[in-house]
Amino acid sequence: MKKYRDLNRLFVVEGVKLVNELFEQSAFKIDAVFHTPSFEGAIPGSVHTFQITESELERISGLKNPNKVLAVVKYPAPVTIDYMENNLVLLLDRVNDPGNLGTIIRTADWFGIRQVIASPSTVDLFNPKVIQSSMGAVYRIQYHREDLVETCQQLQANDFQLMGADLGGKNLYEVDFPAKTGLIMGSESHGISDELQKLIDLSITIPQFGQTESLNVAMASGIILSHYKRNG
Amino acid sequence: MKKYRDLNRLFVVEGVKLVNELFEQSAFKIDAVFHTPSFEGAIPGSVHTFQITESELERISGLKNPNKVLAVVKYPAPVTIDYMENNLVLLLDRVNDPGNLGTIIRTADWFGIRQVIASPSTVDLFNPKVIQSSMGAVYRIQYHREDLVETCQQLQANDFQLMGADLGGKNLYEVDFPAKTGLIMGSESHGISDELQKLIDLSITIPQFGQTESLNVAMASGIILSHYKRNG
Repeated sequence: MKKYRDLNRLFVVEGVKLVNELFEQSAFKIDAVFHTPSFEGAIPGSVHTFQITESELERISGLKNPNKVLAVVKYPAPVTIDYMENNLVLLLDRVNDPGNLGTIIRTADWFGIRQVIASPSTVDLFNPKVIQSSMGAVYRIQYHREDLVETCQQLQANDFQLMGADLGGKNLYEVDFPAKTGLIMGSESHGISDELQKLIDLSITIPQFGQTESLNVAMASGIILSHYKRNG
Repeated sequence: MKKYRDLNRLFVVEGVKLVNELFEQSAFKIDAVFHTPSFEGAIPGSVHTFQITESELERISGLKNPNKVLAVVKYPAPVTIDYMENNLVLLLDRVNDPGNLGTIIRTADWFGIRQVIASPSTVDLFNPKVIQSSMGAVYRIQYHREDLVETCQQLQANDFQLMGADLGGKNLYEVDFPAKTGLIMGSESHGISDELQKLIDLSITIPQFGQTESLNVAMASGIILSHYKRNG
């Protein structure tokens, strides 16, 4: 599916709430909207629009319960990373569950994080499950797919310090976040890759009080961001 | 499915990691284990054991990718809630996504929370998706399904103060948690029910810095618990 998305540089957004939010964005150009007669959203005049039946929508929808409307959207133009604009950049190394990526983006947006940079091996942002679980935050976050080793070196050259979340680092509750922080979150099963580990200035750990071996990567990201905002 | 689980008071645990952890528990009695020839776990001698083929396992498994073993387990005996033993009791009001419930239990266990009490309308603990996403924490947490209004009144009679997470409360970062806290988390779409709202001593809110309208209930639970532990 990703192959076809990349080939056509088009992805799909579904459901009344997400599509209505899409209409309010300027960064995303809509190629076409397919909707059932009961859809009441304000479709921009310039958009190709097709009224279809419920059963036609069921055939083209990827949702278990299709919800009145499906939009086909053009990939946004790549944005240059402006390091100067940000105090915390979130770096995702090989996160491979789409629900986790969507939840991370939703939570990053809640905490006002502007830029998320993911390794090319991270699950595709335009995966429909990512879009759905982000609850629209994909429209607001600047998301990049870049080689993370290069990105980390650039961040360090721009006075960022790199923090990595793992199980043997400094207690999160005692961390003073530097003025410019690159926060690296590793994959669900393998953590942060060796090449990135070498670049990390400080490893941090969410203190553990019980016996569960690990936290979900989305959960860990949200917890760290909340303490970053509390300190900042 | 819940109907049959309740009728027989049996539920299913799947996969090498979760079943091996199950073998180390004493609170859960195993009714039977079905495994393929390649399963190498140490099945307790007293357990009815059946070797089956990969394709037989596929037929009885609820997983997309069955993983060598499936155990049928008896419901644990109900445990009396010992309020005195706990400083924070987590109360879940109508949480209805099994992935959210499993993640909440996994995260509660990480933070050493012993007791989770859910409204009868919360998704069933023995739902296979809850078991899987809890990563084995269901074995360690004491979980109760109780009427929450009664439970909250009992907690208050035992010197607990009730905190409720919503969007218009006191800034989490400025909250002093009382010595005994009952933390109420509401449903994904409807929040905390009106009857419970009336009992709450203090509403708390995770500060919002961006435009996303809400956090996932599991994420919000984990963030609040992490700040509770930081203060405590």
